[in-house]
Amino acid sequence: MSFYAAADLNDTIVAPITPPGVGAIGVLRMSGNNAIAICNSVFKGKDLTRQRSHTLHFGAIVHPNGQVIDEVLVSVFKAPHSYTSENTVEVSCHGSPYILQQVIQLFLNAGARLAKPGEFTLRAFLHGKLDLSQAEAVADLIASETEAAHHIALNQMRGGFSGQLQQLREQLIHFASLIELELDFSTEDVEFADRTQLTQLVQQLLNALTQLIESFALGNVIKNGVATVIAGRPNAGKSTLLNALLNEDRAIVSEIAGTTRDTIEETLNINGITFRLIDTAGIREAQDRIEEIGVEKTMQKIAQATLLLYVFDVTQLSPEEVEKDLQQLHPNDAQLLVIANKIDELTENTANNFGNLYPEAYLPLSAKQGNGIAALKQALYQIVTGQTANNSNSAALLQNNAIVSNARHAEALQNARQALQQVLKGISLHISGELLAADIRRALAHLASITGAEVTPDDLLGNIFSKFCIGK
Amino acid sequence: MSFYAAADLNDTIVAPITPPGVGAIGVLRMSGNNAIAICNSVFKGKDLTRQRSHTLHFGAIVHPNGQVIDEVLVSVFKAPHSYTSENTVEVSCHGSPYILQQVIQLFLNAGARLAKPGEFTLRAFLHGKLDLSQAEAVADLIASETEAAHHIALNQMRGGFSGQLQQLREQLIHFASLIELELDFSTEDVEFADRTQLTQLVQQLLNALTQLIESFALGNVIKNGVATVIAGRPNAGKSTLLNALLNEDRAIVSEIAGTTRDTIEETLNINGITFRLIDTAGIREAQDRIEEIGVEKTMQKIAQATLLLYVFDVTQLSPEEVEKDLQQLHPNDAQLLVIANKIDELTENTANNFGNLYPEAYLPLSAKQGNGIAALKQALYQIVTGQTANNSNSAALLQNNAIVSNARHAEALQNARQALQQVLKGISLHISGELLAADIRRALAHLASITGAEVTPDDLLGNIFSKFCIGK
Repeated sequence: MSFYAAADLNDTIVAPITPPGVGAIGVLRMSGNNAIAICNSVFKGKDLTRQRSHTLHFGAIVHPNGQVIDEVLVSVFKAPHSYTSENTVEVSCHGSPYILQQVIQLFLNAGARLAKPGEFTLRAFLHGKLDLSQAEAVADLIASETEAAHHIALNQMRGGFSGQLQQLREQLIHFASLIELELDFSTEDVEFADRTQLTQLVQQLLNALTQLIESFALGNVIKNGVATVIAGRPNAGKSTLLNALLNEDRAIVSEIAGTTRDTIEETLNINGITFRLIDTAGIREAQDRIEEIGVEKTMQKIAQATLLLYVFDVTQLSPEEVEKDLQQLHPNDAQLLVIANKIDELTENTANNFGNLYPEAYLPLSAKQGNGIAALKQALYQIVTGQTANNSNSAALLQNNAIVSNARHAEALQNARQALQQVLKGISLHISGELLAADIRRALAHLASITGAEVTPDDLLGNIFSKFCIGK
Repeated sequence: MSFYAAADLNDTIVAPITPPGVGAIGVLRMSGNNAIAICNSVFKGKDLTRQRSHTLHFGAIVHPNGQVIDEVLVSVFKAPHSYTSENTVEVSCHGSPYILQQVIQLFLNAGARLAKPGEFTLRAFLHGKLDLSQAEAVADLIASETEAAHHIALNQMRGGFSGQLQQLREQLIHFASLIELELDFSTEDVEFADRTQLTQLVQQLLNALTQLIESFALGNVIKNGVATVIAGRPNAGKSTLLNALLNEDRAIVSEIAGTTRDTIEETLNINGITFRLIDTAGIREAQDRIEEIGVEKTMQKIAQATLLLYVFDVTQLSPEEVEKDLQQLHPNDAQLLVIANKIDELTENTANNFGNLYPEAYLPLSAKQGNGIAALKQALYQIVTGQTANNSNSAALLQNNAIVSNARHAEALQNARQALQQVLKGISLHISGELLAADIRRALAHLASITGAEVTPDDLLGNIFSKFCIGK
């Protein structure tokens, strides 16, 4: 069964749009042709069907048996001036799940049906109020927990990313039509589309696409955080380091309830980038089977890491021993930072000579005294973003760059790039305009799939919107 | 420090009013003289200060540095037409805790301060929009999880309870003034207040108060649920009974996310009354210390129970053994239901003769086959409400009765009753009008404390409102 069918757009749909649980208020949204009429049928106060758009009305929701369910405030939005472009009411109830459920039940009885996850936003898309990448950004925006993630999502929702794609698409469409024009004159062997110009354009496009595709590494990190594993021998100071990293950060925890979410690991926010810090058991030559299991677990965590912080006790290990540990630990696909801990315990002589005794890349630090923590944060940020954290913040860093943070978009961009590479190859091989045009159309279709500019298959829509929360 | 000070009413306060967590939208409320102006200072769209009350405005919240925080919908309410009676804005943001926090921060920077728990409702009370018992009902309404609890809270919020009290108070005030008039003529030995009539009125009032006070037993049960302990020997079928009781109930669990809350025990809803079912370890003569601890725990749970369901295997225990168990178990202050389980395993003969073999109060039942479960629910409901559950529901049952569900109110009513009993005693002893008037005034003060009709001490307000959730 499809996620939506054309007939569905005639339904009036309803769902709670505030987070589940108890609060001062809870809000329901009902959208569709009959939304205002259905609400009005159980509303005691003014006649809602006679109110202007964007007005608020106090009254009571009353069961047909006369029982008052709640005193509420109803917001009236008239098509097309609403989130979905349809007639919409939003009902602010007292924030008891029991009450919300009762009011929804009345609306269902009066002819509405429960909205599927993401269905309000799906309707906004189907009515042309948002393009597909903007719709997806709405979900990202809601899930954003850091300044940078928020910035990317908001930017995408406001159409920044779609705009840049639109330009690329238009240039390609121009060339595609020129080539297709040639086909009409195929017997005459003319070339309306200058192959040299086309090559230049495709090359430009490939550069732009590559930039966007490469931005996904950062976009993905910003959206999903950086899995950062802290590993090292027992008593290297891993936990002290973890605390030293977190302590400063905790000072900016908000005093507003509900700001933080339950997390499995500790998270560290550096200028808007979330590092998910994963502590591991100390590794050493396994003495027995139980230790062996501990080491295996550490290795598993490292295998999933984006970033590995290897910590060692500078008073205990020689550079050679460190390198041996690293050979054992370091997986090929994680970034590595080596931290020389406990520099406060070195003799002054050794400390002064640190640069000569250890490789330059090693970061000297005292987790206990907090020396070097700022430099470590700087290094973490730089490894991930390629930028220094000095005075800047990620949002400012991102200000002028389009960042792709959505895996579906990244894949579409890669597919478009592949098709364009075919175009380049085709030009150099002097293949027929017909085949060239087909490759260009293929690249265009991949780009269009990002914004949903061409007809989007039902199952893709289902895949995208079913991941939204109820009420969005 | 007091919970509020007079100067506080000049502050503009802000808080999230939707439940914490991620959702489609999250709403902030800001109330106070400057609420609309403060919001307007960071709002890009229309000039909010020039908009009419009860209108909605789409726009963006923008940081002074130009960074867009979110696209929002702002509801404008102008004093006195708002929940608090003050200028108020409600800002619907995308439901990301990060965004709500950012927007609040902007409002704080612009001169608002965070609202304390219950402070919006406190302001509504201080501005005379709600009386104290109505304000308390708002918190109860939000916390209500069943039809009956919801009904009582809504009724109280809509002033039903306050109204009945008002009548009683007015009659008393009338008599108090008559008696105080006598004092002005004390040398002339007149009685304006007919002592027989006064006695009748006080008697009427005492009856009414007693009815309200007695309703608290039910009101409290409806609000807080009935602690119901299931106890019995091992293999009596306690867990099967628990499942049998819950199975039917689970069918009405809502399909809407967030309807249910985490509970420590299983809860059973019978016609709007919540029974908190607490299963216990099987009890028998303790064979060792560990079993002894198990029995002790069971006894502790029974000591806290309102209702004890004692279950026994009818094929194993004689009435004498049951009575012996009950003597051991049954605490003085819990209601008791004795359940004869496994009647499906009795011979037909014994089954037919059940009434003669066991005391009449025993409830025959087969938890396994579900026989007798409906009768048990009926009995549970009847024990708590004194009513049969036939076709009725608790809300209908409560329709015409004022129910006290607030412990503070119950205590004030008891104090008022005590003072009125002093009045009766004083009349019969022919004490002076002066002393009579003092007792009447004392009764009046206790009644007034329920609605806050007279000046309410600061610490009481603090005590009441600090228990509200943030944003209410």
